[in-house]
Amino acid sequence: MKQQETEISTLGEFGLIERLTQGFVCKNPGTHKGVGDDCAVLRGNGDSETLVTTDLLLEGIHFDLTYVPLRHLGYKAVVVNVSDVVAMNGTPRQVTVSLGISKRFTVEHIAELYAGIRLACETYGVDLVGGDTSASVTGLVISITCIGEAPKGDIVYRSGAHDTDLICVSGDLGAAYMGLQLLERERAAGQGIADFQPDFAGREYILERQLKPEARRDVLDELRQLGIRPTAMMDVSDGLSSELLHICKSSGVGCRVYENRIPIDYQTAVMAEELNMNVITAAMNGGEDYELLFTVPLTDHEKVSQMRTARLIGRITKPELGACMVTRDDNEVEIRAQGWNAFSQEPTTAPHK
Amino acid sequence: MKQQETEISTLGEFGLIERLTQGFVCKNPGTHKGVGDDCAVLRGNGDSETLVTTDLLLEGIHFDLTYVPLRHLGYKAVVVNVSDVVAMNGTPRQVTVSLGISKRFTVEHIAELYAGIRLACETYGVDLVGGDTSASVTGLVISITCIGEAPKGDIVYRSGAHDTDLICVSGDLGAAYMGLQLLERERAAGQGIADFQPDFAGREYILERQLKPEARRDVLDELRQLGIRPTAMMDVSDGLSSELLHICKSSGVGCRVYENRIPIDYQTAVMAEELNMNVITAAMNGGEDYELLFTVPLTDHEKVSQMRTARLIGRITKPELGACMVTRDDNEVEIRAQGWNAFSQEPTTAPHK
Repeated sequence: MKQQETEISTLGEFGLIERLTQGFVCKNPGTHKGVGDDCAVLRGNGDSETLVTTDLLLEGIHFDLTYVPLRHLGYKAVVVNVSDVVAMNGTPRQVTVSLGISKRFTVEHIAELYAGIRLACETYGVDLVGGDTSASVTGLVISITCIGEAPKGDIVYRSGAHDTDLICVSGDLGAAYMGLQLLERERAAGQGIADFQPDFAGREYILERQLKPEARRDVLDELRQLGIRPTAMMDVSDGLSSELLHICKSSGVGCRVYENRIPIDYQTAVMAEELNMNVITAAMNGGEDYELLFTVPLTDHEKVSQMRTARLIGRITKPELGACMVTRDDNEVEIRAQGWNAFSQEPTTAPHK
Repeated sequence: MKQQETEISTLGEFGLIERLTQGFVCKNPGTHKGVGDDCAVLRGNGDSETLVTTDLLLEGIHFDLTYVPLRHLGYKAVVVNVSDVVAMNGTPRQVTVSLGISKRFTVEHIAELYAGIRLACETYGVDLVGGDTSASVTGLVISITCIGEAPKGDIVYRSGAHDTDLICVSGDLGAAYMGLQLLERERAAGQGIADFQPDFAGREYILERQLKPEARRDVLDELRQLGIRPTAMMDVSDGLSSELLHICKSSGVGCRVYENRIPIDYQTAVMAEELNMNVITAAMNGGEDYELLFTVPLTDHEKVSQMRTARLIGRITKPELGACMVTRDDNEVEIRAQGWNAFSQEPTTAPHK
């Protein structure tokens, strides 16, 4: 590296994207929303809007094939994209799948990957419409783009949260991260041992959260049934802390979330205990849960309290109050994005953006 | 590899895609055309159709940074996608850009790549609307998706060619391939020599064809001006032979193209002579020209004869006559796809699908 050159890790993923896309002005009248949300939004002259999102998964960065079955990988690769469309209150319709395949993979391996892709397409009613397939010098490369649709006016952005809105999150958090820790522990334990049998008994839930996440369409259904329209929404892929900060930044607001309201499954808690990790840190920063984080007007308090799929975890504040977590002992701790940095010094298998 | 496992090279890129996408049925009413053309076609309820195409470019497979400047690479990565939209008679509108970046790249390197991406976006009136950026364990990964638009009924597929139609191609062929040969020769010549100055004098055209191809929107303009509507169309990315076979297969027809009608630039011919290569082979199988190959009804003979941007090279026949080139000495040679195979035994930098 020459002098005056900048290492990418000094900017991080979001800093780099911000720097690179600075000054790109969208000129097509059909481009309603470009970079900066879960999906781009395109407008035709019909009565619906088009959503576009894309994710790149690289071997050795986003997945480790020593413990991720190819079928699960294919399923998850589609789901993480579908989740971005769902997080905009849209319906996923099509995907394209591009693969870079190194020589150690056989046709049968790739057919396994596709079996997972196919299952996800069927589960979410999505059509596979194209892609590109190529050799790769090293490792497996998966690039998926998902196209979705929403009636005009239905799309929910990150930027719509207002002071006094309530903050809700679906399901529970930290399980996917603890599942990853479990997989890595068993991999380490099994190294060099022939016929090693990993011990996953009683840990099925956290494993499934890591290996086979789902997009929460059912949360959208319940919101519609209850007549709730979120003011802002996104999916939890990098971790709750990181996503809360995105909503606060995009909406120009602050937030308070309550530690004792963060939903955590008992398998997550037990695993954290066993590994001597702080379970709240896992829930706040673990990522890959693909739950929905959303805000609703204060007047919907009664309605959201009835929700089966989501719970209230805090409220939106004026921006000058910043973003904080209120701990069990009533202290305020500033929320910082400690989620996975794609450009950290040592790339390891880690949660996917 | 276990027994009964199949090496991917035995199927090749198109065979693998066919095998993997077998039995995927498109179920969304909005999915008008899935896998099998330059773009997928999506239909909303407005008066236009949406085109989607995606390309994956991998370092060491599709490009070699020892002689491809990052700025040119960014430009070309957008253009190859734009060209797929143009080849369906559409207008490109948006792109998403996903990057996998290994540690040897600095922010300044990636900014160079983006300068090329930006220039291509400006040149083709395309908006950058999203993407994904990640670390990569080895090499640069570029995945671009382009979204385009066409008025309902305007899209031209590969499948519309009929017996007696005329076959036309724009520009000239084989130049991009000879440009690649020149770059590889100079790279080999310069290996181990400090301050080596490659000799590119008088070869600017073939170099530019390799390093900075353009999508032929101007051909679409001329077709419209002359009132010609192609019956089938695609872009020449893998080589004329391969593309002719795609049109014949999709349309259920045969073809005759005439060797003495294949358009070749004099720099291409001189370079082939110098390297002792057959220039017709380069033109038929070289690829990466991004010219437009299209068919028109026989009744448009007079109109296409006037075209500045394209020329007549043959005609469509009944399927039982097969696909042949008629040589200068009036022999018929069967056309076979000798274009680049992405899964050949030895991956080398090679034309991009």
